[in-house]
Amino acid sequence: MPEFLYGHWAVIEAMRAGRRKLDALMIHERAEKRGPVGDAMSMAEELHLPIQRVQRRILNDLARNGNHQGLVLRVGPYPYCDVEEILGTAARRNEAPFILLLDLLKDPQNVGSLIRVSDAVGAHGIVIQERRSVAVTPAVVNASSGAVEHINVAQVTNLVSAMKELKEQDIWLVGLDVGHNIPPLDKTDLNMALGLVMGSEGEGLRRLVRDTCDLLVTLPMRGQVGSLNVATAGAIALYSAWSARDWNGWVHA
Amino acid sequence: MPEFLYGHWAVIEAMRAGRRKLDALMIHERAEKRGPVGDAMSMAEELHLPIQRVQRRILNDLARNGNHQGLVLRVGPYPYCDVEEILGTAARRNEAPFILLLDLLKDPQNVGSLIRVSDAVGAHGIVIQERRSVAVTPAVVNASSGAVEHINVAQVTNLVSAMKELKEQDIWLVGLDVGHNIPPLDKTDLNMALGLVMGSEGEGLRRLVRDTCDLLVTLPMRGQVGSLNVATAGAIALYSAWSARDWNGWVHA
Repeated sequence: MPEFLYGHWAVIEAMRAGRRKLDALMIHERAEKRGPVGDAMSMAEELHLPIQRVQRRILNDLARNGNHQGLVLRVGPYPYCDVEEILGTAARRNEAPFILLLDLLKDPQNVGSLIRVSDAVGAHGIVIQERRSVAVTPAVVNASSGAVEHINVAQVTNLVSAMKELKEQDIWLVGLDVGHNIPPLDKTDLNMALGLVMGSEGEGLRRLVRDTCDLLVTLPMRGQVGSLNVATAGAIALYSAWSARDWNGWVHA
Repeated sequence: MPEFLYGHWAVIEAMRAGRRKLDALMIHERAEKRGPVGDAMSMAEELHLPIQRVQRRILNDLARNGNHQGLVLRVGPYPYCDVEEILGTAARRNEAPFILLLDLLKDPQNVGSLIRVSDAVGAHGIVIQERRSVAVTPAVVNASSGAVEHINVAQVTNLVSAMKELKEQDIWLVGLDVGHNIPPLDKTDLNMALGLVMGSEGEGLRRLVRDTCDLLVTLPMRGQVGSLNVATAGAIALYSAWSARDWNGWVHA
């Protein structure tokens, strides 16, 4: 089944990463070759991809009314990896594993945003459960600004089983949670072989997932309003973990 | 001119904060008194506010097709404060000032999200410029989950002038920027009288704003894709600053 990626960065990064089968670039019938559309056209030409000009309503339909910015890319399925490949990436970089595990997140915007930040901090991969959780859909690719095309994502049958396997590899599983007597995230040295576990929107960590964590940390809050969005909380936790590694691998802008 | 706040948290927090003139709660003509709508109805009754039942298309129009969740609150204008009041809040709490300054941000979602996090970390207020920047519109209130109804927001004629006044009050202005030779944000002790300055989407800090900062910090990045969304970057910087204050004022959940 082909998929239809949409939006400037999603399309550009999918072509740049080249991990999927690339079928065709689709643009508006009267698009000129300039700006982001022009950049995508040039890349498609270099890759010898067909460029198809279609009506706007076709783009709208293929993007399921997402913000396609005049660009749709017809591609093969997302190339999920397995957990071993994530650990292999860490080993090749000679770094202690740094993995994000997502427990049943539902919102493609949140998942895309967390994958985007995982890429920014140099995490080695993301683990998501196959059922009852968002997969890497075109909406997730778009929300990740295309970052998911570059990073490892493992889709596992059972998150708790995957966690247990990671523990056997001496990876510490740290769950981000709320509640009494949970220390703030900067009081734990996150500079270790790390699997950071984030719970779902509203529900948080499932009991069995929480119980499988080696330790829990919390994001302090004050102020008048309830808990932060999971994507915001996760971004802060991911940066905290990378800061603990003293920004290893940082390439100055 | 009345304003029409929309969405569950925006409406609830505006009533709870009670800083605006409250005119009427508007709900769907066939809404039942349960769930979030029921909570809002109970609060409106306690406050002796009229409850008006209207057609869905009226709610859609008043919310300008935002996600109103069946709730619209007719209110007076947003109660902007001045910079002195922000400093007064810091003094009353016996804390070194902690202020967020936004340079010409355009996206209500980003501004709302940054205000939401400012509230979560106990910042004393936000400073925005009146022209060429997003004001506290109903879309911002919604994106802030209503947090903006509780926190101080000062709208100033000229951001650079406001920055100079803050400097005279011995507040350090720290700009978040990208570029060579800018230290990462955790190498500067942010535990000081702080004004954190964020640039706009895409453009970053204006030159004069940057030059008026006492120092610049950067958010390290690695990975394949360009810079982070300003709301994500700002959330990380705000949490970094609060962490430097050792989570003062944290009330455990």
